[in-house]
Amino acid sequence: MNTIGTLLRCTTWGESHGVSIGAVLDGCPAGLEIQHTDIEKELERDIPDIALGIPRREPNDFRILSGVYNGITVGTPICIEIPNRQQRSSDYDGIKHCYRPGHAEHTYHKRYGVYNSTGGRASGRVSISFLAAGVFSKKLLSGVGIGFESKLEELAGIRCRNGKDLDEARKKCMEIGGNGDSTGGIVSLKIMGVPAGVGTPVFGKLNSLIMYALSSIGGVKGVECGMGFEAARMTGLEHNDGYLTDGSGIKLESNNCGGTLGGISTGTDLYFRLAVKPTPSIQLPQKSVDWMKEQQEEIKLNGRFDINFAPRVGPLAEALASLVLADQMMISGYISPSKASGGSKGGI
Amino acid sequence: MNTIGTLLRCTTWGESHGVSIGAVLDGCPAGLEIQHTDIEKELERDIPDIALGIPRREPNDFRILSGVYNGITVGTPICIEIPNRQQRSSDYDGIKHCYRPGHAEHTYHKRYGVYNSTGGRASGRVSISFLAAGVFSKKLLSGVGIGFESKLEELAGIRCRNGKDLDEARKKCMEIGGNGDSTGGIVSLKIMGVPAGVGTPVFGKLNSLIMYALSSIGGVKGVECGMGFEAARMTGLEHNDGYLTDGSGIKLESNNCGGTLGGISTGTDLYFRLAVKPTPSIQLPQKSVDWMKEQQEEIKLNGRFDINFAPRVGPLAEALASLVLADQMMISGYISPSKASGGSKGGI
Amino acid sequence: MNTIGTLLRCTTWGESHGVSIGAVLDGCPAGLEIQHTDIEKELERDIPDIALGIPRREPNDFRILSGVYNGITVGTPICIEIPNRQQRSSDYDGIKHCYRPGHAEHTYHKRYGVYNSTGGRASGRVSISFLAAGVFSKKLLSGVGIGFESKLEELAGIRCRNGKDLDEARKKCMEIGGNGDSTGGIVSLKIMGVPAGVGTPVFGKLNSLIMYALSSIGGVKGVECGMGFEAARMTGLEHNDGYLTDGSGIKLESNNCGGTLGGISTGTDLYFRLAVKPTPSIQLPQKSVDWMKEQQEEIKLNGRFDINFAPRVGPLAEALASLVLADQMMISGYISPSKASGGSKGGI
Amino acid sequence: MNTIGTLLRCTTWGESHGVSIGAVLDGCPAGLEIQHTDIEKELERDIPDIALGIPRREPNDFRILSGVYNGITVGTPICIEIPNRQQRSSDYDGIKHCYRPGHAEHTYHKRYGVYNSTGGRASGRVSISFLAAGVFSKKLLSGVGIGFESKLEELAGIRCRNGKDLDEARKKCMEIGGNGDSTGGIVSLKIMGVPAGVGTPVFGKLNSLIMYALSSIGGVKGVECGMGFEAARMTGLEHNDGYLTDGSGIKLESNNCGGTLGGISTGTDLYFRLAVKPTPSIQLPQKSVDWMKEQQEEIKLNGRFDINFAPRVGPLAEALASLVLADQMMISGYISPSKASGGSKGGI
Repeated sequence: MNTIGTLLRCTTWGESHGVSIGAVLDGCPAGLEIQHTDIEKELERDIPDIALGIPRREPNDFRILSGVYNGITVGTPICIEIPNRQQRSSDYDGIKHCYRPGHAEHTYHKRYGVYNSTGGRASGRVSISFLAAGVFSKKLLSGVGIGFESKLEELAGIRCRNGKDLDEARKKCMEIGGNGDSTGGIVSLKIMGVPAGVGTPVFGKLNSLIMYALSSIGGVKGVECGMGFEAARMTGLEHNDGYLTDGSGIKLESNNCGGTLGGISTGTDLYFRLAVKPTPSIQLPQKSVDWMKEQQEEIKLNGRFDINFAPRVGPLAEALASLVLADQMMISGYISPSKASGGSKGGI
Repeated sequence: MNTIGTLLRCTTWGESHGVSIGAVLDGCPAGLEIQHTDIEKELERDIPDIALGIPRREPNDFRILSGVYNGITVGTPICIEIPNRQQRSSDYDGIKHCYRPGHAEHTYHKRYGVYNSTGGRASGRVSISFLAAGVFSKKLLSGVGIGFESKLEELAGIRCRNGKDLDEARKKCMEIGGNGDSTGGIVSLKIMGVPAGVGTPVFGKLNSLIMYALSSIGGVKGVECGMGFEAARMTGLEHNDGYLTDGSGIKLESNNCGGTLGGISTGTDLYFRLAVKPTPSIQLPQKSVDWMKEQQEEIKLNGRFDINFAPRVGPLAEALASLVLADQMMISGYISPSKASGGSKGGI
Repeated sequence: MNTIGTLLRCTTWGESHGVSIGAVLDGCPAGLEIQHTDIEKELERDIPDIALGIPRREPNDFRILSGVYNGITVGTPICIEIPNRQQRSSDYDGIKHCYRPGHAEHTYHKRYGVYNSTGGRASGRVSISFLAAGVFSKKLLSGVGIGFESKLEELAGIRCRNGKDLDEARKKCMEIGGNGDSTGGIVSLKIMGVPAGVGTPVFGKLNSLIMYALSSIGGVKGVECGMGFEAARMTGLEHNDGYLTDGSGIKLESNNCGGTLGGISTGTDLYFRLAVKPTPSIQLPQKSVDWMKEQQEEIKLNGRFDINFAPRVGPLAEALASLVLADQMMISGYISPSKASGGSKGGI
Repeated sequence: MNTIGTLLRCTTWGESHGVSIGAVLDGCPAGLEIQHTDIEKELERDIPDIALGIPRREPNDFRILSGVYNGITVGTPICIEIPNRQQRSSDYDGIKHCYRPGHAEHTYHKRYGVYNSTGGRASGRVSISFLAAGVFSKKLLSGVGIGFESKLEELAGIRCRNGKDLDEARKKCMEIGGNGDSTGGIVSLKIMGVPAGVGTPVFGKLNSLIMYALSSIGGVKGVECGMGFEAARMTGLEHNDGYLTDGSGIKLESNNCGGTLGGISTGTDLYFRLAVKPTPSIQLPQKSVDWMKEQQEEIKLNGRFDINFAPRVGPLAEALASLVLADQMMISGYISPSKASGGSKGGI
């Protein structure tokens, strides 16, 4: 179940402590131009917010193993590999048999019967593969006029409406982080340029498929579309978006619906909001259990952790939403499943 | 895309103005005992809240066309048909070519190129098929000790913490409804008894699949798991659920996570909240467009509409979540995909 | 697993001894014109060969429960129901706990733990649902110039090259059938008008998907494409189809490949052959076991059986191949997944 | 569409002229022990028959990038990469814009609009990824007593019943190959130890899914199950397999059905036969077209080609059938989808 999509299918693989991490993107139309730098640039977005005090890491290397020749996709599966350079698990040595609260060692252990002290597929590191695959889907969509914009809406409970707010929010995150604790935040995602008529109800609703993809990002605890929970407090007259025409097409006069009605796009921007939980890795004492001894333990993690990973969620939200949307654009007949526009007939 | 599930697959069909509505449930293990009254009782839950002033409708008839003999499933696809008794579309006659705000005629028209003035698959009526199919998945789950509980948490912005609150909320809904407008609400869903170890990351996360199913219910604009958006305002120490043991098993000391970590169940209750938008059908003037004439129109709907459909969402949430959960219990090896416990070897 | 297809998905349900049999066709583009008589005519093809001495049965009734209004598909799932008029299982009474050789009671019993003495989903009756669904896919394909032709190639070991051969073959079948035994045959399927470029290797090869669908017909024991097993005895020079051009397009000079290379259509006719086993229902003594008593028994079936069901396989082969092909034509971008050509924008 | 399977999913990627070829196996239960040498040994089976005059190649390198630690699977996707050491496409230089008869450049070109002169995914080289993935599924099956045996039944039209026949057949292949032409053959596959009750009709029939997988092997033009085309010439009495019991279980007295009835396993050996076409690469003049100039050409390929690739098909048939069968064993409840038997609870 590491595959998402119907015509455009992204399969991801790799653990944070293994040889490498990667994705296979199957069903990408031929003829799409992709430069090495397109991917480089996107992978660099997976950096913590420097203003949050977390230093820039070294850039990620990657290799395209198949599907792209001379910078052009050929229609076959695209495999991208991103090596794990540092596979040190020594940070975890002292707590090897203790489940870390808020992490997934316990549940993975129960699911597969094999214990893995370093997070495995639940590590944030794994999501780098989404970014790599998303380069292709975003480019496909950009070819038909669709763009993405993700924003940090809230950090540690402080709305980031302007630069001053953001400074204040960062300061609060730094303070809490300095004490060994962590914070969360809220991220918004806007998708512009989606034509009316995309989506396949009742179990391929565009909003639902995107909400599913967004909720697959580690640590996302809630997803809203349009007015979200606020809609529950509005009246029908307030919430309904009226229709307008000037004789040259039909438009919605507002966008409370967030871009879909009945699971199909309306032609307005798609709009989502995501709740990101506080980083579970904290440097304070926590109640744990040593599963080998079945014995209560107090653990305190050492190492460098993101004190707030909400800033990393925006690019992931764009990537995953773009994979779902490109797939649905194919299924709804708006993107050719065979040949990207501008596809060359020449040799490779 | 009217099918949900991998091993347990539910395909729904039918429009509100057609002959009938139904579901095909494929992959249901053999040997499950289902009485006619089990289904009858569940279909009766699809009634508006009487205290909200909406009268009880006549009960839904249904027929089991296949897959169940002498009250026992035999492993083949189960088809249930629920006839549409009243297919009057006269209520809509005056507004036949005008898109109703908040409804899906516009988007369906754009998607399929065919205009349908009565809602088609976007009608609430269609979701009766989820209830019918959910009877089987809920029974499968009840056989392994799993139960469901949905609650109205909020109506028209008023929290329904007790009977007095609820009375007040209903009164507000009635008032607003009496003026021809409508209201929404918030519904919670608790699933009890799920063992630790269910779910298949990274694209088969238990929480994500359930959130996807819940967001497929018409009018749901947001879904939370555990602390949801509140989690974004907590610190890691506050949000993390510690582990406890008394030597006879391992437990979480709290349930902020809402029942999953890394997309796999923790053994605590699953907990979700859904935002339900106000009913789009209102009896007030609204801006619309006659798409045939491409001309601005003001429309006012006549007829009887639910003034708040949040009370109908709880049973649907249970049904859809149970379909996803039963499927994942099979995939994770907790329910046999072939034979329900107690399956008889006798003739049918 | 009663669903076939990716964008065009056919789900079938129903047992020969249940209320009815049917299919849900999901993903059929809107705007396809379907007359009641289109379906009637196709269902009438499911008759035994009269010259084989098996009388015409009464025509099958059917109801379209959803997805088609005023003779036009609207893009929603199409559910067709075909009632079972005679559900007599008395023919089997004497042998109720004995597995019939060549039938599937034994394997179904092992699979689901429930015993069903009348064949269940393995009955030939069930395949009537394929015919009903195939009406839509064949019409979709006929709209883009694709036609189907199935032929009886061989009956009871006698090649049916002309009318005289066929008479001889039928006579042999009648003779063997008259003695209570049964015979089989070979059926060919030709699909004309498929453009070059359809199919999605390596696990969506057009030939493989069709061969899979054809081998899903009950009693089919072998499937060939192009020269089939004969190809294994040819040399490369003999088998390869050369390319020709007269300056206005590129063609194959022969069609040994049977219409695909590398799993993608070549532009030549698709050509398949199917081996149909002799009817397992025979009126001669056979070795069986009473599974309740775990005791050896000799059984002799009574009733009227097709003495050769090869003539019924041709229409089924057309139907199933058309479902696969229409789906692949959508996936390869040759048929719109949303709107059938000629789709009306008018009301329904 | 480069993925096969439902619970056990194999996605393959890579072209013969790219960086590497590989497979991602998702859904493999945790706790399966896999040695480096297990894979090495299987990859070495992809060698031409030395007695057919084709020299042994250097062994294939490979890397396991994820999913296996300390020789044990952990339940996460397993990615295996096999580098392409020699990516010379110079052999094809002279014929760069000419479609090779019997190859797939023409159809790939039509499908994707991009021309690729060296075969891409249609190359036999690509199938090495099936062998790598099959190591895991075969080991899973061997853990429950299931074994595979593939045999060369016929080469160049000569039955290989014994060593003398085989010598004669090889001699004929060498002769024809020496003249620049090529030959084909017939391969059989026997699967032993499958319990009764595996398979999921009507579109997940065990025989059909395996036939589909086998027909996905490049160059396979026909697939039979059990008596195959011979069944079409038998009577019901001859073909039906009677049931026997000695009081301790129920058995079939023969195996004409080839191991399935109604798409579900009977408990007897599964038996298939595959027709392999002659190698399309031959060193004789053939009619081709230069698609750039749209001009008739005669081409003659240079280089070293397998003069008969039937010997390479056996291991591929085993691998693909094992992927399908292991998946179906999970779906039918005979193999745990979570934990391989013997799965260790220890750390990794």
